[in-house]
Amino acid sequence: MPQNLTHKILAAHLVDGASLGAPGSEISLRIDQTLTQDATGTMAYLQFEALGLDRVQTELSVSYVDHNTLQMGFRNPDDHRYLRTVAKRYGLVYSPPGTGICHQLHLENFAKPGKTLIGSDSHTPTAGGLGMIAMGAGGLSVALAMAGEPYRIAMPKVVRVNLTGKLTGWATGKDIILHLLGMLTVKGGVGKVFEYAGPGVKTLTVPERATITNMGAELGATTSLFPADERARDFLTSMGRADDYEEWVADEGAEYDETIEIDLSKLEPLAAQPHMPDRVVPVRELAGMAVSQSAIGSCTNSSYADLKSVAQMLTGKRISETTDLLVSPGSKQVMKMLAHENLIEPLLDAGARMLEASCGPCIGMGGSPISEGVSVRTFNRNFEGRSGTQDAKVYLTSPLVAARVALDGAFTDPAGWGEPPAFPELPATTPSIRHLFIFPPEDGSGVEVLRGPNIVPLETFSELPETIGTRILLKTGDDITTDHILPAGAQITALRSNIPAISEYIFSRVDAEFVSRMKSAEGAPCRGVILGGENYGQGSSREHAALGPRHLGVCAVITKSLARIHRANLVNFGILPLLLKNPADYDRLSQGTELTIAATDLTPGGTIAIEAKGVGPIEVINDLTATELAIIQAGGLLNYVRAKREQKA
Amino acid sequence: MPQNLTHKILAAHLVDGASLGAPGSEISLRIDQTLTQDATGTMAYLQFEALGLDRVQTELSVSYVDHNTLQMGFRNPDDHRYLRTVAKRYGLVYSPPGTGICHQLHLENFAKPGKTLIGSDSHTPTAGGLGMIAMGAGGLSVALAMAGEPYRIAMPKVVRVNLTGKLTGWATGKDIILHLLGMLTVKGGVGKVFEYAGPGVKTLTVPERATITNMGAELGATTSLFPADERARDFLTSMGRADDYEEWVADEGAEYDETIEIDLSKLEPLAAQPHMPDRVVPVRELAGMAVSQSAIGSCTNSSYADLKSVAQMLTGKRISETTDLLVSPGSKQVMKMLAHENLIEPLLDAGARMLEASCGPCIGMGGSPISEGVSVRTFNRNFEGRSGTQDAKVYLTSPLVAARVALDGAFTDPAGWGEPPAFPELPATTPSIRHLFIFPPEDGSGVEVLRGPNIVPLETFSELPETIGTRILLKTGDDITTDHILPAGAQITALRSNIPAISEYIFSRVDAEFVSRMKSAEGAPCRGVILGGENYGQGSSREHAALGPRHLGVCAVITKSLARIHRANLVNFGILPLLLKNPADYDRLSQGTELTIAATDLTPGGTIAIEAKGVGPIEVINDLTATELAIIQAGGLLNYVRAKREQKA
Repeated sequence: MPQNLTHKILAAHLVDGASLGAPGSEISLRIDQTLTQDATGTMAYLQFEALGLDRVQTELSVSYVDHNTLQMGFRNPDDHRYLRTVAKRYGLVYSPPGTGICHQLHLENFAKPGKTLIGSDSHTPTAGGLGMIAMGAGGLSVALAMAGEPYRIAMPKVVRVNLTGKLTGWATGKDIILHLLGMLTVKGGVGKVFEYAGPGVKTLTVPERATITNMGAELGATTSLFPADERARDFLTSMGRADDYEEWVADEGAEYDETIEIDLSKLEPLAAQPHMPDRVVPVRELAGMAVSQSAIGSCTNSSYADLKSVAQMLTGKRISETTDLLVSPGSKQVMKMLAHENLIEPLLDAGARMLEASCGPCIGMGGSPISEGVSVRTFNRNFEGRSGTQDAKVYLTSPLVAARVALDGAFTDPAGWGEPPAFPELPATTPSIRHLFIFPPEDGSGVEVLRGPNIVPLETFSELPETIGTRILLKTGDDITTDHILPAGAQITALRSNIPAISEYIFSRVDAEFVSRMKSAEGAPCRGVILGGENYGQGSSREHAALGPRHLGVCAVITKSLARIHRANLVNFGILPLLLKNPADYDRLSQGTELTIAATDLTPGGTIAIEAKGVGPIEVINDLTATELAIIQAGGLLNYVRAKREQKA
Repeated sequence: MPQNLTHKILAAHLVDGASLGAPGSEISLRIDQTLTQDATGTMAYLQFEALGLDRVQTELSVSYVDHNTLQMGFRNPDDHRYLRTVAKRYGLVYSPPGTGICHQLHLENFAKPGKTLIGSDSHTPTAGGLGMIAMGAGGLSVALAMAGEPYRIAMPKVVRVNLTGKLTGWATGKDIILHLLGMLTVKGGVGKVFEYAGPGVKTLTVPERATITNMGAELGATTSLFPADERARDFLTSMGRADDYEEWVADEGAEYDETIEIDLSKLEPLAAQPHMPDRVVPVRELAGMAVSQSAIGSCTNSSYADLKSVAQMLTGKRISETTDLLVSPGSKQVMKMLAHENLIEPLLDAGARMLEASCGPCIGMGGSPISEGVSVRTFNRNFEGRSGTQDAKVYLTSPLVAARVALDGAFTDPAGWGEPPAFPELPATTPSIRHLFIFPPEDGSGVEVLRGPNIVPLETFSELPETIGTRILLKTGDDITTDHILPAGAQITALRSNIPAISEYIFSRVDAEFVSRMKSAEGAPCRGVILGGENYGQGSSREHAALGPRHLGVCAVITKSLARIHRANLVNFGILPLLLKNPADYDRLSQGTELTIAATDLTPGGTIAIEAKGVGPIEVINDLTATELAIIQAGGLLNYVRAKREQKA
């Protein structure tokens, strides 16, 4: 039977016993590659260390440093040193700070068609631009994959995104994914893989494809991918990696669970309005709005082609006096390629500020806009406050639009922009920066792992009690992001290796009293429950958004619906993810409502009634697999795996 | 009578009535140029606005943004917008963030031989490398200079630094000033101008001279300067400013108050050890010490020549895996010149991290070292904790040494380094970046000055009471820096426009209880007194180190000796600077000692007895001029000038 590309790659990685089965059923996958970034990586490696192995079991594991690169104090550089030494000790490749953004670097240097990759960053699907199954995961899942354990996911539906026609005018790859977000919303991709197909695919280069698969994360998708075709071969050849090419395409006549049609020729420049990536409108509708900042970069749009287009647009021009333009290249390779073609000077001459190759302003690591400022960004997320300025209004656009608003000081109508710059093709060969990675020795057993005072060993969580008497200690609205649960920004992100310290910031921007309420609540280890709305936990893969609440004593999250990676993180740290059977019950429950949960009644995929004092029984669905339930009962995945490994030994 | 260069320039700027007189007597100077940076500038412009003028009265005033460039939240960019609009309104040149470091930019674009310049940054003497009298000053002094008021200083002694021979091997301009610091200590320059002369002068280029005059600030000097000779002409010609050249040199046979001899041919690479710039030793004595970080840049060593030397040393090499190398160019011009000569790629290929053109790690604005890390920096200050890592050990060296330790991962003996790179000469013409400055319109009266919620109007301080009943609320040791009084770093420096907010951090790293002790003390507006040791207030020009204490209710600082700029700031904000007549009395006084100061007994340059309860009378010298005393009695300079202007009107 003809197979789609997703099924092909999954089938090649299915662990014994599992089958592709029906969407929603659990599958186990062999993982070829892993990646981490520093903000999630320190925790992942502490977890890997806790498993007691001598060396990673994957084909390739890379530890990138791209988040905490500002280094406001000892915590960030101590973390970098830990990551460097732990990589050498256990056989990982280490990418030092300033080398670039993990997804851009992985695409340029390590991504391979037909392989599986999980990364402790939600934008890991970027590598799907090269025809691999690349998924965001919690750090613990990555640690277990490094230990050779299979990765379990619910089998996703496969959506064929059929591209026809070709982009015209000022429309770019970014506008394809913005269009999709406008159509499907940030919940539209949950439980799905978006597989791009059709005659329009070959009109898109790998960097354009990577922009699309990157921001597929904002759909809530399991992942997105493009076929590995001649375009992928050209890209790999340009990167000096022709040998890594293998054709991976869907079979003729393959079936899909759903199909979406996009005519590329009909697209125009789009922008996602504050404060969600799915609030998409045509740029022309925003014409006249003053823009105080433009920021170009991030794992979504920081490639050579992106920045060359911008440099071409800015050559010989000066940006508006009232607009600040920040440019963060995706990697030192991008920077070298720009330098090589004398494209740094035009950027400087136009008034652009050249920042280090790192995530930077995208994660609020500097570059915050003015109070109530309008900031146009080529990034992937515009959640409220993520920029570091709570009342800023962030719009997401392509680099072409971001360069244009910097010149004009305002949104203008693309109809008046004239001819767009020629789309930059990759040169036949590019300057490599592979020598900047630190490759591990054959035997790392003699390497000392260096820690700092902010790197705190993991705590051991207790098992799930048989009966949970607790209270709702926070009731949130819909679309709570992991930025709401645990804000980003340098000060807080510097504490990612220190769960007790970072837990002080859980929900701090939503409810400043939440942490003290948790601490003073009775009933440890089960002090309280969070009641959420739709799409709770969307956004980044940071497992601290589960670890922190668990540290404070949250034992269950009851919601209308949950984002995929966050749900996995809750399970991994022993927090019960429960879904309201009747969403209207949400309105009957309040902060302070006392709950009794008979945890012994939980069965895989079952329904139980929670006794809510003064309200009556509330039915909740526990959509857990048997394994997931066992993990939660054990007090989390680390306890569960340790126990299993001890049984074996 | 033949004049030295210092006297020549001072004489040309003396305001009526004043004369060069004897060292120590007060002189008043016409100020041609002013500069501010953003961390001190917002306060300076708030003060200028409070004076009610329509336009600056100087030949040139420039507002640079180079300190708070990371933008962790709305405060920094709001400050930038305020500075941009206030510059346009009142006739200043504005230099946006990312354009470069104020002193480097001023040297390249605006410094002129024979002129006077004051700047609200202690390293303003950098411009003395071009034969001008350039002094650091408090923001209020700069505001008054912009209003056309003369600048008052105590007439300094003029020290002839007689340079003979020429530099050899790996010794550089940086080693000349480090040598002088080792010889004279950080107190050795108080009340002095260092005028470089002798046959060795012509062997040094302007960027080398500027490194020396820049770091003359660490001697506590009033300023330092070199003659404006053919080297100055060459530099200005290269900058496209040949018309700005005028010869300014000392007369043959001029007299000086003191002379110091330095034979350049005897110098070797030096390093200032933690935690003071005068703890100088030869680099060879440090050989073998592992170095975890090397940082190249700052207003001391970020010129084209500095960075080209580094690029030459790193070409074709890879830095040590265990050493992080940060490079911050001094200006976009430097960056453009490097790009033009293809010198960016070798830096990237060696593993250097290219940061934005700004102060950056020098002021703890990112780039902090690891815990207990050894960091080698080309900067001018290595005060404890200034790097952002309290227990880091910072060594100050030349860029050549910093590049070398990055390659070796450790200090090594220069004897084994082979031939140094050829000293880079400036090209005959350089790419200008003048179009990146925002020049003001002829008439700015219609420009709206934009503020943000963190920009808090100035408070009005009360007059000095006749009798002050108070207590010593803090007793410090010697060499207290303005970093001790008010720490740097992004979080605190972001509050520079908000005195009530920033005052919460006064002495926070010296005594965490100080602020609450001040707040709970009786006797407002005079709640307490600080007792200091020798050289109190050395370091930066930040007037917040006086404004903050004044806001909290500090009405006097009693010390063994005081740094020049900080003393002026105390006077400017109405705090009495008193010197112990008998330094041994320091040991008789403690935190908590009750004091009664009969302020009506104060006379210019007199001595009064303070009644210290349980100790007896303590004699203190009040070395104030009549004007200074009147300023303090009025509650500060702003009150004093306002009253005088009202009298005139």
